[in-house]
Amino acid sequence: MTVTYSRRVADAGLGTFSHLLLRWRGSIYKLLYRELIIFTILYFGFSVLYRFLLDEGQRRLFEKLAIYCDKYANLIPLSFVLGFYVTLVVSRWWGQFESVPWPDRLGALVGGHVRGADESARLVRRTLMRYANLSGVLIYRSVSTAVYKRFPTMDHLVQAGLMTAEELRQLEDLPSPHNKFWVPCMWFVNLTMRARAEGRINNDVALTALLNELNTLRSQCMKLYSYDWISLPLVYTQVVTVAVYSFFLACLIGRQFLDPSQDYPGHDLDFYLPVFTLLQFFFYVGWLKVSLLSVDEMYDGVPLMERDKYW
Amino acid sequence: MTVTYSRRVADAGLGTFSHLLLRWRGSIYKLLYRELIIFTILYFGFSVLYRFLLDEGQRRLFEKLAIYCDKYANLIPLSFVLGFYVTLVVSRWWGQFESVPWPDRLGALVGGHVRGADESARLVRRTLMRYANLSGVLIYRSVSTAVYKRFPTMDHLVQAGLMTAEELRQLEDLPSPHNKFWVPCMWFVNLTMRARAEGRINNDVALTALLNELNTLRSQCMKLYSYDWISLPLVYTQVVTVAVYSFFLACLIGRQFLDPSQDYPGHDLDFYLPVFTLLQFFFYVGWLKVSLLSVDEMYDGVPLMERDKYW
Amino acid sequence: MTVTYSRRVADAGLGTFSHLLLRWRGSIYKLLYRELIIFTILYFGFSVLYRFLLDEGQRRLFEKLAIYCDKYANLIPLSFVLGFYVTLVVSRWWGQFESVPWPDRLGALVGGHVRGADESARLVRRTLMRYANLSGVLIYRSVSTAVYKRFPTMDHLVQAGLMTAEELRQLEDLPSPHNKFWVPCMWFVNLTMRARAEGRINNDVALTALLNELNTLRSQCMKLYSYDWISLPLVYTQVVTVAVYSFFLACLIGRQFLDPSQDYPGHDLDFYLPVFTLLQFFFYVGWLKVSLLSVDEMYDGVPLMERDKYW
Amino acid sequence: MTVTYSRRVADAGLGTFSHLLLRWRGSIYKLLYRELIIFTILYFGFSVLYRFLLDEGQRRLFEKLAIYCDKYANLIPLSFVLGFYVTLVVSRWWGQFESVPWPDRLGALVGGHVRGADESARLVRRTLMRYANLSGVLIYRSVSTAVYKRFPTMDHLVQAGLMTAEELRQLEDLPSPHNKFWVPCMWFVNLTMRARAEGRINNDVALTALLNELNTLRSQCMKLYSYDWISLPLVYTQVVTVAVYSFFLACLIGRQFLDPSQDYPGHDLDFYLPVFTLLQFFFYVGWLKVSLLSVDEMYDGVPLMERDKYW
Amino acid sequence: MTVTYSRRVADAGLGTFSHLLLRWRGSIYKLLYRELIIFTILYFGFSVLYRFLLDEGQRRLFEKLAIYCDKYANLIPLSFVLGFYVTLVVSRWWGQFESVPWPDRLGALVGGHVRGADESARLVRRTLMRYANLSGVLIYRSVSTAVYKRFPTMDHLVQAGLMTAEELRQLEDLPSPHNKFWVPCMWFVNLTMRARAEGRINNDVALTALLNELNTLRSQCMKLYSYDWISLPLVYTQVVTVAVYSFFLACLIGRQFLDPSQDYPGHDLDFYLPVFTLLQFFFYVGWLKVSLLSVDEMYDGVPLMERDKYW
Repeated sequence: MTVTYSRRVADAGLGTFSHLLLRWRGSIYKLLYRELIIFTILYFGFSVLYRFLLDEGQRRLFEKLAIYCDKYANLIPLSFVLGFYVTLVVSRWWGQFESVPWPDRLGALVGGHVRGADESARLVRRTLMRYANLSGVLIYRSVSTAVYKRFPTMDHLVQAGLMTAEELRQLEDLPSPHNKFWVPCMWFVNLTMRARAEGRINNDVALTALLNELNTLRSQCMKLYSYDWISLPLVYTQVVTVAVYSFFLACLIGRQFLDPSQDYPGHDLDFYLPVFTLLQFFFYVGWLKVSLLSVDEMYDGVPLMERDKYW
Repeated sequence: MTVTYSRRVADAGLGTFSHLLLRWRGSIYKLLYRELIIFTILYFGFSVLYRFLLDEGQRRLFEKLAIYCDKYANLIPLSFVLGFYVTLVVSRWWGQFESVPWPDRLGALVGGHVRGADESARLVRRTLMRYANLSGVLIYRSVSTAVYKRFPTMDHLVQAGLMTAEELRQLEDLPSPHNKFWVPCMWFVNLTMRARAEGRINNDVALTALLNELNTLRSQCMKLYSYDWISLPLVYTQVVTVAVYSFFLACLIGRQFLDPSQDYPGHDLDFYLPVFTLLQFFFYVGWLKVSLLSVDEMYDGVPLMERDKYW
Repeated sequence: MTVTYSRRVADAGLGTFSHLLLRWRGSIYKLLYRELIIFTILYFGFSVLYRFLLDEGQRRLFEKLAIYCDKYANLIPLSFVLGFYVTLVVSRWWGQFESVPWPDRLGALVGGHVRGADESARLVRRTLMRYANLSGVLIYRSVSTAVYKRFPTMDHLVQAGLMTAEELRQLEDLPSPHNKFWVPCMWFVNLTMRARAEGRINNDVALTALLNELNTLRSQCMKLYSYDWISLPLVYTQVVTVAVYSFFLACLIGRQFLDPSQDYPGHDLDFYLPVFTLLQFFFYVGWLKVSLLSVDEMYDGVPLMERDKYW
Repeated sequence: MTVTYSRRVADAGLGTFSHLLLRWRGSIYKLLYRELIIFTILYFGFSVLYRFLLDEGQRRLFEKLAIYCDKYANLIPLSFVLGFYVTLVVSRWWGQFESVPWPDRLGALVGGHVRGADESARLVRRTLMRYANLSGVLIYRSVSTAVYKRFPTMDHLVQAGLMTAEELRQLEDLPSPHNKFWVPCMWFVNLTMRARAEGRINNDVALTALLNELNTLRSQCMKLYSYDWISLPLVYTQVVTVAVYSFFLACLIGRQFLDPSQDYPGHDLDFYLPVFTLLQFFFYVGWLKVSLLSVDEMYDGVPLMERDKYW
Repeated sequence: MTVTYSRRVADAGLGTFSHLLLRWRGSIYKLLYRELIIFTILYFGFSVLYRFLLDEGQRRLFEKLAIYCDKYANLIPLSFVLGFYVTLVVSRWWGQFESVPWPDRLGALVGGHVRGADESARLVRRTLMRYANLSGVLIYRSVSTAVYKRFPTMDHLVQAGLMTAEELRQLEDLPSPHNKFWVPCMWFVNLTMRARAEGRINNDVALTALLNELNTLRSQCMKLYSYDWISLPLVYTQVVTVAVYSFFLACLIGRQFLDPSQDYPGHDLDFYLPVFTLLQFFFYVGWLKVSLLSVDEMYDGVPLMERDKYW
């Protein structure tokens, strides 16, 4: 979904969009084609019903019903409800991205402050960063399907080298119904204190800077977790979905082309294909579905961990 | 209310919503069914009045009244007033959540900087964190019904082990009409200073980091308290409520199906059930009620404290 | 105005609002009743004029004028102008509240870092906090009527024990046309430096933390002062006020019930009381007045200082 | 423009606005009266043309044109374009104000940390603050006409005592096409280092706090400069200006009072003075001009420097 | 695009805009003239078809089609979709600008804390700043076409003196598919640690301040990179583009001047040139294109590096 396409937009030349508009991957067409097909089939179902199956009296009634639906469908405050919802969702989506706990700030400090070129110092540095990454991955597993698929069980974390078997045992021994991402953070704190005691970190300012940076990382984890934990109130999602779907249900009848010979105002022309209604469907349902998917956006935003290159 | 349902939205598949739309717990249907029933009953009351009880002349008058109501109800700036109010309320709701004073950042620092493996050092660490938690709970009690129910009196805090009887006595001896959440903070400061004097905290940088983190927690408490203390001006709530209710009062008459034989424009069809008006009621009143409930949202957002597991 | 009513909203039960809607204190009714009475009197004045005083020809002219006013009043972009203005004002109102310089963060640091149990150390601590409070009060006096009434002259500050006579003399000797809230801040800095020199503050980290926190307080003071100093451009207030008042002036004529026997479209019914116009007046003028009052909101947001309890 | 009037709004009494609405200084009337006169003259020009100069056939054509203009002028998305632009501009205006580099935080630290009562220590303190102020003034000169008028050349800065002739020479010797506000900042850094070496600043924590605060000031300068440097894309300004002006060009013809005897719908009355169109002009053009002036708002927000009082 | 024009707006005098409106560079005319020409040609193509090529029956059909298009084109929620999109894009644009990693804060600290007047100390200072700049340039190359053109290969960075051949070799030896902007940051950390060990940085507070500032720079780099990496979901761009283009396709037919003799309502006049439709095209397409270009805005926001002056 988060396909980078900005460079293509950048030119904004006359012919550029042809490519952009026709992209399939991560596009609105891919997202909507099933709904659009269903809507079209239903529309033509009603159309056939009206044109061929109903008798004269029923057709007059259907026409009145269509005009009624067309008029009152506008009572549904679609733009209002949808605009509010989409704005909310997009701001959450970006808020979520900004909460991703990048470990590199912490990495720079660990690299700088934990001194010593011997094997043991190196191990301390690696282990500290491993703990930081482990915290992040524990959070990612609970908010992202992609990461969850990569590490379906905690054992996969051990296999990937993100934690040792002993650490896993300790983690599982701790009774807690909540996400335990904070446990590796505590390990980090303890290891840092030991490194300070052993003189690998040789001053208290550095120690405090390290702990402070760790706490920043921890807050990011918490924030990311919160976005997943505290969803938008379900009612908003229900209101917006019911609004969109009931509007287009009303359109199925209300936007039928009525017999031009009956002289209903605005029904002079029989097109068979309701181009503008389909466009409207395309805009509103597309808008809604993107919002619902935005919750899911994060799932591709975090690259899969691979062992081979740097491990 | 804050039922996690994001994983279900995530797929956004074609059939996913059937489940989501039909959920009862925390849903808009549960929220609205009573109002909807009352509105429907009143609507049919007027309908019966118009159809069976009025005489010919009164019916003509009723019809004029209905058309008048239908036309002028649109003067009520519903979307405008409601949109403004809801945006405000939702941003406050999230702001409130972001002000929850999580004690874990402070916990990491206390765990790291207050050194010593003896019983007494352990007691200092526990007591420090107990003070931090106590501050939070004192705030939660005043903003959240759920927490208040768990700790209806200060004695319950003592029983739950969050404070000692002696501490409670000191707290109650202090004459102050305001929330005393800051008293445990001061105890925290004093205990930290003593730990520094005794060498349990062995440097001033760590001390300052601890006090700084405590102040952050205290600011969060204050902020959470402020959201409860400084409500949205009452007038906004009154304006929005009067707007919504007066709109639907007008609809009760204005949206009646009038006798098609009288040839009023837009009244060719007698449906008995005003589907679109009910939808509108559903959207607008639902929107309003969620906002009013959002103030209450926090009440479930803080898990109940239980003694058994970690105490 | 900032009457806490959130607990009442929280239930959001069916019958809850009856109480909320009927509150008088801090309510929209109290705010608007005079305007509403004036508007109604004027409306009926025009009504009497039209119905009884004008002759036949003049009535026809009045009717044309009414229809003209009714139609063109909608050209006034009321929601647009009002929505923009209200959003701006409300965000400033909350921004102002968030700028209130709470002295408690500083208090925790002063209590912690300035050591010593002797009378003189206690005096240093009290004096430091007195300076911090004095800075705040000097700002409050210039932005809040309530505080200004409590301390109409600088001598009242001396009487209330917030400053000494000697301090007042020094403050007044300093020639400056601007608010001198920063002078007690400088006193705070100087006293802190002396406390450091005398060893009451026994390390530089603590000293820097204290000065940093003082600067935070000072920035809050400045920010609060700025909101008062840099008002919203006067033009916005003028535009919005002219828009609202000219709209309702036009409504006085445009919304008159015209003689139904003249068959003007939409004028089939003579109600005497223009319910919906009054509602509209209620919503728009209410909205505007709340915004104008919001500037004043802060005035009750800061509790009055009282000497008796803690002094 | 930034005339303080909030205290007057605060009462929000019934009669308060009469004063506020009639203010001239910084008001919308002062801003608009020329445009309003021109618009009125042009309007009456067309009016005279239509009423007296055209023959019968031309008048019929003019009437059709007027109706066409009136109808299609609404295609211009005035509120949409203007609302977006004004919101953007106002948020930039406040952002700019919040970027003003107040030197007082730095002042408190310099006053506290640079110790010594001798002439030379005093000189160091004054010089440090002079450098901070100089940086600010160099920025103000490039963003504010008022400051630029006060200091049209760099020599005026020397005369005002903000920099020495020697410093000016050094500044001008430095080849750079960009604003050199950062040079006094570097001088500040160097002088601080020297003060540390000489022991006037007696610890490294204080030194770091000073440099940190200087960097904050510098970032504020940069931010203020950026708002001036990176304008809103010109296209937005062009779109909004063309939209407003083309709308009112169309109104010049479209809002003419047409001959009532021709029975055009909505043209029953001949008023000569198009009250509501003038109001609309007042609102929209006023709105636009305030936005354009907002860029200029800062120019009075910075008080002129005067030598006499504190120098 | 980011042409500074604020000083010209500032006066907001009556005649000022003539210049501003007529500017070509960075203007909306330059941006749109090709689209406008194409739209006009197509419009007149349909016009010629309707007026001269169709027979009587086809013209009646075309007229019905035009009325149909005109009516239903309004179903496309143009303002809604466009307003949402543009707001989003503009806030990202400014967010991007605020993420530009200015190296001057770091420069002040390096200049202050890395002491020594000898050649080698000077080299350390220069190298540190070179690393900071190198990090920035590596990011700029990946987000800005202008910088990329200046440094098409990494060798150009070596030639420009931003990195040595040896550094380039090390950078390229590091296997990573991602942007390596963080590598010079690590070099910076390592060199700082060495400078501390050698006593050039003579205390730990300064060291921590330096590393902290470096991390701030690094976060800015990351943020800038993120804006490029995580584009707005492609679907939004597609929806908004399809909405705008389909609207104007419908206008090509729907806004044709129909034969006045046919008495279609609102078609009394034949103008040939659809002024208001062209204005609408101008506003909406202009709005859209600016948004698409905004992504590109940054490209001129970073001045080209030149060797000659300070190197």
